[in-house]
Amino acid sequence: MTQFVNKKEDIVAEAVDGLIRASGGALSRLDGYPHIRVVLRSDWDKSAVALVSGGGSGHEPAHAGFVGEGMLTAAVCGDVFASPSVDAVLAGILAVTGPAGCLLIVKNYTGDRLNFGLAAERARAFGLKVSMVVVDDDIALPDLPQARGVAGTLFVHKIAGALAQSGADLETVTAAAERVIAGTRSIGMSLDTCTVPGTPKEQRILPGKAELGLGIHGEAGVEQVSYSDAQTAMQMVSKRLSEQMEPGRPYVALLNNLGGTSVLEMQILAYELAKSPIGERLTHVIGPSPMMTSLDMRGFSVSVYAPDAEGIEALSATTPLVAWPGLSTLGEVRVVALPDGLRPIRPVPSDHPQTRAFLTRCCEVFIEAEADLNLLDARTGDGDTGSTLAGAARALLSAMDRLPLADHTQLYRAIGLELSETMGGSSGVLLAIFFAAAGDAASSGHSQREALKVGLARMQEIGGAREGDRTMIDALLPALDNLPEGLTQAARAAREGANRTADMTTANAGRSSYLNAEQLKGQVDPGAEAVARLFERLADCRSKDFA
Amino acid sequence: MTQFVNKKEDIVAEAVDGLIRASGGALSRLDGYPHIRVVLRSDWDKSAVALVSGGGSGHEPAHAGFVGEGMLTAAVCGDVFASPSVDAVLAGILAVTGPAGCLLIVKNYTGDRLNFGLAAERARAFGLKVSMVVVDDDIALPDLPQARGVAGTLFVHKIAGALAQSGADLETVTAAAERVIAGTRSIGMSLDTCTVPGTPKEQRILPGKAELGLGIHGEAGVEQVSYSDAQTAMQMVSKRLSEQMEPGRPYVALLNNLGGTSVLEMQILAYELAKSPIGERLTHVIGPSPMMTSLDMRGFSVSVYAPDAEGIEALSATTPLVAWPGLSTLGEVRVVALPDGLRPIRPVPSDHPQTRAFLTRCCEVFIEAEADLNLLDARTGDGDTGSTLAGAARALLSAMDRLPLADHTQLYRAIGLELSETMGGSSGVLLAIFFAAAGDAASSGHSQREALKVGLARMQEIGGAREGDRTMIDALLPALDNLPEGLTQAARAAREGANRTADMTTANAGRSSYLNAEQLKGQVDPGAEAVARLFERLADCRSKDFA
Repeated sequence: MTQFVNKKEDIVAEAVDGLIRASGGALSRLDGYPHIRVVLRSDWDKSAVALVSGGGSGHEPAHAGFVGEGMLTAAVCGDVFASPSVDAVLAGILAVTGPAGCLLIVKNYTGDRLNFGLAAERARAFGLKVSMVVVDDDIALPDLPQARGVAGTLFVHKIAGALAQSGADLETVTAAAERVIAGTRSIGMSLDTCTVPGTPKEQRILPGKAELGLGIHGEAGVEQVSYSDAQTAMQMVSKRLSEQMEPGRPYVALLNNLGGTSVLEMQILAYELAKSPIGERLTHVIGPSPMMTSLDMRGFSVSVYAPDAEGIEALSATTPLVAWPGLSTLGEVRVVALPDGLRPIRPVPSDHPQTRAFLTRCCEVFIEAEADLNLLDARTGDGDTGSTLAGAARALLSAMDRLPLADHTQLYRAIGLELSETMGGSSGVLLAIFFAAAGDAASSGHSQREALKVGLARMQEIGGAREGDRTMIDALLPALDNLPEGLTQAARAAREGANRTADMTTANAGRSSYLNAEQLKGQVDPGAEAVARLFERLADCRSKDFA
Repeated sequence: MTQFVNKKEDIVAEAVDGLIRASGGALSRLDGYPHIRVVLRSDWDKSAVALVSGGGSGHEPAHAGFVGEGMLTAAVCGDVFASPSVDAVLAGILAVTGPAGCLLIVKNYTGDRLNFGLAAERARAFGLKVSMVVVDDDIALPDLPQARGVAGTLFVHKIAGALAQSGADLETVTAAAERVIAGTRSIGMSLDTCTVPGTPKEQRILPGKAELGLGIHGEAGVEQVSYSDAQTAMQMVSKRLSEQMEPGRPYVALLNNLGGTSVLEMQILAYELAKSPIGERLTHVIGPSPMMTSLDMRGFSVSVYAPDAEGIEALSATTPLVAWPGLSTLGEVRVVALPDGLRPIRPVPSDHPQTRAFLTRCCEVFIEAEADLNLLDARTGDGDTGSTLAGAARALLSAMDRLPLADHTQLYRAIGLELSETMGGSSGVLLAIFFAAAGDAASSGHSQREALKVGLARMQEIGGAREGDRTMIDALLPALDNLPEGLTQAARAAREGANRTADMTTANAGRSSYLNAEQLKGQVDPGAEAVARLFERLADCRSKDFA
């Protein structure tokens, strides 16, 4: 799988520089490229306990993305999935540690433990106060004496970070970090492996399977399980966690995107987490969000911790860090009643023989034209314009008795409403907009022709079609423009307009916009044809309702 | 590709409920499931202009993730990649619109335009003030009269949102939104298509290719281009944008993750954006972050807008929304000089014939044992324990003249330093930690034996190995425990300890932890064997330096 990277050896340095450049000056780095990649707070004055974390890269935003007020002071970035060198860690410690000392927060991997451990020894030789905690929150392998450190590390970063920010001393911060580590449990599940730059992607997880209990370096999960859906996936994860949770204590969950899961899926997983067997015991949630990723792995992890009041305060403390999604209560879905007015108030029906006759005539035009218009549409569209219009016409005929035929301003709206409910597709909506806007204009005192022109303008605004775009507008606009000269003149203009559409070889709106010039040449647009036929019939009848 | 979803028809409702449950009470929804899915601010009092947006789902966090103080008032969520119904939009408008009116922010797709447009008409029939703007920021198809709305929509949400929040009236908010739309340009690039739930993934993009100018619904890009690396990718995108940017105006860039790109890659793209031809013209950046995604598409988009001072103020205005990454200046990489002390100060060399002889003897033990230890290691490890130790011994012999042989407290540190520089792997680091910690203890007045035990404890703490874990500790610990009884006793204890490792069939630390009981049974651990041989030789010589 191709990735958005450049040379493999530059990946981490470029990613660090990208983070720093987009940080608005909040972050700096040590001048130690290529081997020493240490990100630090630009505003750090060594007045409090420094927190240094890090490890292999590929877990972004961890760890450099959590450097800032209220969280880490510095992050030491190794190559992708490889521990940073002792020198790099030492540089980080020396750069940020003042009289208050420094806490190293290390994930439980041999390389990290050793390199951070030796760097701590070296820093102590300078007389610096350095303590170190090792996070081992992963419960995937219950028999492994050396549990891995995964996303639960974020609880440590945030709680220790808030304490250090508030001025607590090194012993207090270290003890708090150790308490958090002792109480944090995590497990992950994935549907796909990650893509390690420069290495062919391992296709290890078969369709219908998921890996439960994987690590954050692309390691295989402890077991491959059958995967059916998000609900059973979260139930499996929640069951494993529940076995490790102390009864009666309220927990906080951290829902982590391992990198390649869509935001949509993560929201569904949040929903399932709340509904899961441990959902009732979770008072708060952090995320869903990518915090400790495994490059682009399509998976998630859940970490749980039962904080005391001080822990909740530390997790809630504000931090300007974008990567920290904050602590929220995990609650019920708040549901608000639907507003009134969704079911439109239908106008009082009334009769008016002349209008009834006129409307009936219009409907008959479309019903009679059904086959012709379908044929026309079949050449440039999907052949249903005739049926759509005829169907709407039949529906309108059968609705005649509930229309306010005697109240012309109300009638527009009522027709629009009927059309939007019975006529499918864009054309139904567009005609509904046309009649609704015309009704608005009529009720504010415009003449019928003006009202229809207002409706047409609104329909164009919403539909986006202009004259010349091969739509019904090419017949309707000239017809309305010529209506003051009488129906015969309007009908002639509509026909001329419809015929012109046969020469329009680029359609800019509607379905015909997907066809090319060759396919469109010589074909009259069926919508324009329908309008032309309507006006021709009305002119024949010389109805007095119009103009 | 399997996804973390349940039934297809529940995807959006569950994702909305997941978002709401994790919102800490900030969000509510209308009681209109399954067809009406409208997310709204829980604290909304209709005292200001309401902003309603939405459209098809699959673009999370857009749009529901941007509902909150300072951005949207409500989001109307359609099915994945499908416009919400007129009724759903109308419900959203009616639920949040007060006397100040409502602005609809719609992306330029026919379905959205029609459904939001008709809903606006219906809402106006209730006497509500409703205006509507259509975002068309995509420049992928320069000849298309109907440019699509993509991630640039976020500029509109944020600027209109900040204005509405500050109490501006509908006309002002609408005019500002229209100015933003007129000035916003976006283009995207992708290395892979997205996975639409329930539809087999389209494998359209061949290896070595990227799609430039794609949409946010999995549409094919306008062209397939050769893909080599992040740098040339960003240069292509930046070139398209630069053709549409007004000269001399400072721009803000919005760097959007289309969903499936790792955070690491997005940071590299931020780096490349800053270095790109348009980098110099960008004063600020929003992101990198997923804002307007296309499910899990491995791609990114860049949107640019040149705001005036009021626009910058609106983009900077604080909002509690986690999904909004904030506006940052796009700056140079701030580099801080490396701290002093990375190159350790070497102690002044001094001679001490007895110590020199003792150390030489120890080194000779390991050199002589090289072949035996390698053989032992080959059965349970990778066969290099002998060579590693012998190599370190040879290096120490050749460093003898620069060691502070007459200063025993300094000598420990100096040996640790030499070992960490010459001995590869975990063992070099662990022994360096052992000697450094022992040196610390010796210089704080501990006896030699006590100092060595402190070193051992620190080595165990960092290395994680306990007695019984089949490591050198199984010989070293009993040897030090028995040292007060004399070297002979210590050597016997070391030998017994080493021999016991042959019965240890579960290794909990080191490389042997990957082997099973069958493979380990009867094999003495080479590290423990080395320690036993050392003490045996020292006992033979009855050195007076020890004990």
